[in-house]
Amino acid sequence: MSHKIVLEEISKNKIYGGQQMRFRHESKTLNCEMTFSIFIPEKGENEIVPVLYWLSGLTCTDENFVLKSGFQKYANQRGIAVVCPDTSPRGENVPDDHDSSYDLGLGAGFYLNATQKPWIKNYHMYDYVSDELPSLVNKNFKINGKKMSISGHSMGGHGALCIALRNYSSYKSASAFSPIASTISCPWGVKALSNYLGGSAKDNFYEWAKYDVVELIKQSDLSIQNSFPIMIDQGNADNFLDEQLKTKLLIDVAKKEKFPLKIRFQEGYDHSYFFIASFIEDHINFHAKYLNC
Amino acid sequence: MSHKIVLEEISKNKIYGGQQMRFRHESKTLNCEMTFSIFIPEKGENEIVPVLYWLSGLTCTDENFVLKSGFQKYANQRGIAVVCPDTSPRGENVPDDHDSSYDLGLGAGFYLNATQKPWIKNYHMYDYVSDELPSLVNKNFKINGKKMSISGHSMGGHGALCIALRNYSSYKSASAFSPIASTISCPWGVKALSNYLGGSAKDNFYEWAKYDVVELIKQSDLSIQNSFPIMIDQGNADNFLDEQLKTKLLIDVAKKEKFPLKIRFQEGYDHSYFFIASFIEDHINFHAKYLNC
Repeated sequence: MSHKIVLEEISKNKIYGGQQMRFRHESKTLNCEMTFSIFIPEKGENEIVPVLYWLSGLTCTDENFVLKSGFQKYANQRGIAVVCPDTSPRGENVPDDHDSSYDLGLGAGFYLNATQKPWIKNYHMYDYVSDELPSLVNKNFKINGKKMSISGHSMGGHGALCIALRNYSSYKSASAFSPIASTISCPWGVKALSNYLGGSAKDNFYEWAKYDVVELIKQSDLSIQNSFPIMIDQGNADNFLDEQLKTKLLIDVAKKEKFPLKIRFQEGYDHSYFFIASFIEDHINFHAKYLNC
Repeated sequence: MSHKIVLEEISKNKIYGGQQMRFRHESKTLNCEMTFSIFIPEKGENEIVPVLYWLSGLTCTDENFVLKSGFQKYANQRGIAVVCPDTSPRGENVPDDHDSSYDLGLGAGFYLNATQKPWIKNYHMYDYVSDELPSLVNKNFKINGKKMSISGHSMGGHGALCIALRNYSSYKSASAFSPIASTISCPWGVKALSNYLGGSAKDNFYEWAKYDVVELIKQSDLSIQNSFPIMIDQGNADNFLDEQLKTKLLIDVAKKEKFPLKIRFQEGYDHSYFFIASFIEDHINFHAKYLNC
């Protein structure tokens, strides 16, 4: 007997002809109550539509992209549903960093499956985003779960690329704004992986490499290299570019592995949602091409 | 000897080719420090450009429109600067409503000049928006102060229409989303006017009518009726429509006075920024027509 999953509607607003909604549900994977946003385009009222998952960055919730990017105009034009999960498990019983720092714990789930205490009980954002949430969405909305793409920003760009590279047969395309290119090689990543996964890049390499875009490209086989479309936008006025994002490592590994990544540097743009708003039309159109819509 | 006004830059972000900035300054009119946002389109780097003022609604600051509407794309396309003031005076020494209610005091300046204590010292948003801020902006940026239009949402729609109707030779056009059409006739308005101006619509009618769109249209002369372009968008799923906004009074008075208001009802849209985002392109293009750009 299947367990009935209850979706509680929090809000519903018409925008650009489509419907922007928020829902609350109990997550088995994360052992807590979660909130996600979903945009259903006008076309989706009567037809089954493809879907894009958007993963936000550090400190964000499911709402930042919904309120600040203006994606709805282009998603409505192309007839694509867009699902935005939260960035970590939430709630009173979910452990946070003891310093309440912005880059570990609540708001900083890094889209991985934690193996260490106290994180192991709740911090399974990898499974939530790649498995539980799509199942829930596919069951409850008129969505074609076989036409799925994924995108994200910063920590969410890392998440989108890692999930796509490890499950490329499930996604038609991936894109990212200002992604953390190598968690193993930057302070944000090392702090997160050492806490959630334990050890170091040396003594726990197998686990750490699962969540490192550069390592996943190194490990990728020919079929993904020849077939999987990825597009990345990076502002060259981004304060985090050199220390945290390490885009150069991504360019180098793509060249070496002959992985045809499309990376665009955008003159004068920073790490903010102002940057995302400026180029989200291109990303929606990129995914629409591979989602055939 | 002119007093030098110091503008302190708080932030600057590139968006859609233009620059979105925030500044802090001492306001003489409001007797406090104020923050405003200004968008300068790419064209404005080398040329003097026209300007649109945007007035936000209850509880908002200068940031809501900047972060949520996506106006920058269209303002950059048409080469229009956009200035967003805060919605009230601010700071520790500025009085607030004793109940800290959202519709009086901080965040609820109603774009009027208060005559009553304790508001009289700071609450002069009418003078600030129609006089001090444009003077400051015209002196400090490459802006053509003779090509000026005004728009706003809810309380800010009321503010934009009142300021335009009373100073129509200074503005090329006005528009509003979901404006409070008659402050005299709705609970938000009666609470604000009785506190800021004192008395009632009966015993203080002359003062109250200065800040009531319906009354200003009744009092308008032929030259404004024949020449001044106004456009209004109103969602018909707006929770505030009947009790607070009173759009019907505006339709009736415009018909009676033969004032050629363009009022559009938008099916299924509510009072939120999702509504504004959906139609801001039309408003920017409407103003661009009269700003000749």
